Amino acid sequence: MKINHHYLNLEDSYLFSTIARKVTEFQKANPTADVIRLGIGDVTKPLCSAVINELHAAVDEMGNAKTFKGYGPEQGYGFIKSAVLDYYKANNIELAEDEIFISDGAKSDLGNILDIFHKDNTVLIPDPVYPVYVDTNIMAGRNILFINANMDNQFLPLPSEHTKADIIYLCSPNNPTGAVYNKQQLKIWVDFALENNAVILFDAAYEAFISDSSLPRSIFEIEGAKKCAIEFCSLSKTAGFTGTRCGYTIVSNELVYEGVSLNKLWLRRQTTKFNGVPYIVQKAAAAVFSEEGQKQAKEAIAYYKQNAKTIAETLKELGVWYVGGENSPYIWLKCPNDMASWDFFDFLLEKANVVGTPGSGFGKNGEGFFRLTAFGDKDRTIEAMKRIKEILK
Amino acid sequence: MKINHHYLNLEDSYLFSTIARKVTEFQKANPTADVIRLGIGDVTKPLCSAVINELHAAVDEMGNAKTFKGYGPEQGYGFIKSAVLDYYKANNIELAEDEIFISDGAKSDLGNILDIFHKDNTVLIPDPVYPVYVDTNIMAGRNILFINANMDNQFLPLPSEHTKADIIYLCSPNNPTGAVYNKQQLKIWVDFALENNAVILFDAAYEAFISDSSLPRSIFEIEGAKKCAIEFCSLSKTAGFTGTRCGYTIVSNELVYEGVSLNKLWLRRQTTKFNGVPYIVQKAAAAVFSEEGQKQAKEAIAYYKQNAKTIAETLKELGVWYVGGENSPYIWLKCPNDMASWDFFDFLLEKANVVGTPGSGFGKNGEGFFRLTAFGDKDRTIEAMKRIKEILK
Repeated sequence: MKINHHYLNLEDSYLFSTIARKVTEFQKANPTADVIRLGIGDVTKPLCSAVINELHAAVDEMGNAKTFKGYGPEQGYGFIKSAVLDYYKANNIELAEDEIFISDGAKSDLGNILDIFHKDNTVLIPDPVYPVYVDTNIMAGRNILFINANMDNQFLPLPSEHTKADIIYLCSPNNPTGAVYNKQQLKIWVDFALENNAVILFDAAYEAFISDSSLPRSIFEIEGAKKCAIEFCSLSKTAGFTGTRCGYTIVSNELVYEGVSLNKLWLRRQTTKFNGVPYIVQKAAAAVFSEEGQKQAKEAIAYYKQNAKTIAETLKELGVWYVGGENSPYIWLKCPNDMASWDFFDFLLEKANVVGTPGSGFGKNGEGFFRLTAFGDKDRTIEAMKRIKEILK
Repeated sequence: MKINHHYLNLEDSYLFSTIARKVTEFQKANPTADVIRLGIGDVTKPLCSAVINELHAAVDEMGNAKTFKGYGPEQGYGFIKSAVLDYYKANNIELAEDEIFISDGAKSDLGNILDIFHKDNTVLIPDPVYPVYVDTNIMAGRNILFINANMDNQFLPLPSEHTKADIIYLCSPNNPTGAVYNKQQLKIWVDFALENNAVILFDAAYEAFISDSSLPRSIFEIEGAKKCAIEFCSLSKTAGFTGTRCGYTIVSNELVYEGVSLNKLWLRRQTTKFNGVPYIVQKAAAAVFSEEGQKQAKEAIAYYKQNAKTIAETLKELGVWYVGGENSPYIWLKCPNDMASWDFFDFLLEKANVVGTPGSGFGKNGEGFFRLTAFGDKDRTIEAMKRIKEILK
């Protein structure tokens, strides 16, 4: 038996394990230091009561023979698909129910979608980037090209006449930079994809953080996108589902390549290699889209966004260059005094006892940059900014 | 963008949709007929109280900031891995915790495991078979060989001197036949795999139905299996988790091909393309392995097995050839009077108003055979057998 040799081309990521080791060592050497963590990309607020109540009700259904649910449709129950449908409709996007696929999260679908594409496609990935885009394509042995995101383009790269791509990854609001494409910019990408017969994999996991109504929360706000884009979304950051696992992927029926419907291919993939999201989790997800659920989810997001504002205002005051933080939980800053990412990490940990994420962990263009996140506690975030002000002013 | 052309080689399965259509048509034409369904491979009893109680407790944890869980380890929390470890230990099998991967079910893992294998492997699949083994390999363009399961080998095929294989699928207790390999037979497969540098993908989803203690419930009861087999297991049939979604896959650290550990490859696959099972579901799964959970799960299985006994005794009395039904929820019978599978389906539906599954839907060797399942209601199963006795005696 021969293994998939492409796996041997993967690089191990030591980013978060190195951070953990450095923090542990620092705390051991400085047992009284009060370390504040603004590095983690995970939510901290509990599930809202609308979700909790629905979960309890669904659990009771599972304990009763009359309401018990066995196998459900692999692509999700009608009740959750129609909730997603209405969510898009409120944003003036019309979808059909069979274009919505409920999944256990955007990470799974972003990896698994590659199953339906030929190995011999050229993949275009912005750098810096969420590492999963790169690794899942290395696993399949695909040719990967990078497009530079940097200060010149405000970390929002656009295609040029030299750009080549069959599969294009876009993430907006971006992880790790927090930058958000506007409609004109996304239109350039959609037009490029249509002209080049490419497909856009649009990661909208952070769409709920967009409050500027002129910015697109879905690629389907752009004309032509249904013919060239797949959208991946998640309740992880929208409603604190990182440990509850539910997302959705939109594959339009208008998406046809080589005469074949990608919707039908994805349906075949999911019905063959997936057995659906737990019934109780689908009920919980539907509760997120209820009136009460939306109100509560938005309260949590407002809390995180207040933290983002606290961070952004501090950086502005200090004259530190940054993007993100306004329509995103991430703030991407240029390390002061041209420090390298890891040097700034050490400096921040030692001098301010604050933990962030070195930008170099997200790609070569991340070197010299640093990510702070808004998912912490409000008072701790304020305290962290107070300390940063002291060491940088 | 080019699609994965291998998908175009997939055949659509109309098995269960055709069954549904035929039953609907029959009921329309015979509105007073009392149809009994023994075709479905899904559980009908609700989750047991040990699981329900744990689910409620876990939901409450998710609603409280102090006990809330965000991202967990992709391969599962320690508490559920150690519960699986103890379950195997009770069966005299020693595993390490990092050899256990918690998943959302055997179907996902059986499909996704193929990611870590080279495309150019020869796959050996018994016929008849669970269709997912075939389809997932067609999707990857692998060469598939079939090994005949039939009355001569009691639907338990063994390798011959002509057998060629790099990847071997075994399912015991078998879906759809209910046949169970004994230790001597599995030893022949393990020795074959070791000699031929092949890997066995062992689907043990129905292991909890084995009550004959001489029969192996895990391939790791066979010497040498840790060096050549991956085991897939599920709580779907063990504890009614078909709609709750939790399983586990065992990849031993001794499993090395071309000098590479399959355990490390699978860990890389899962950490890159999967984000773990919902925390609340992992807590529910752990409750299945508790003393109370085991007692209650075994009660449900005993209930289903009583149904299997009812079916098997009827067939024995009628002199109908069959396998399964003793250590399995499935009974696989030869259609009386040499009827074809679909002819017997129609005959049974029209004359006894009983629904089963035509064996031809599981492969060419299934033609002339028929599957009945024990997952129905006790009284309805008794009634169905009474009717079958009347039309076949």
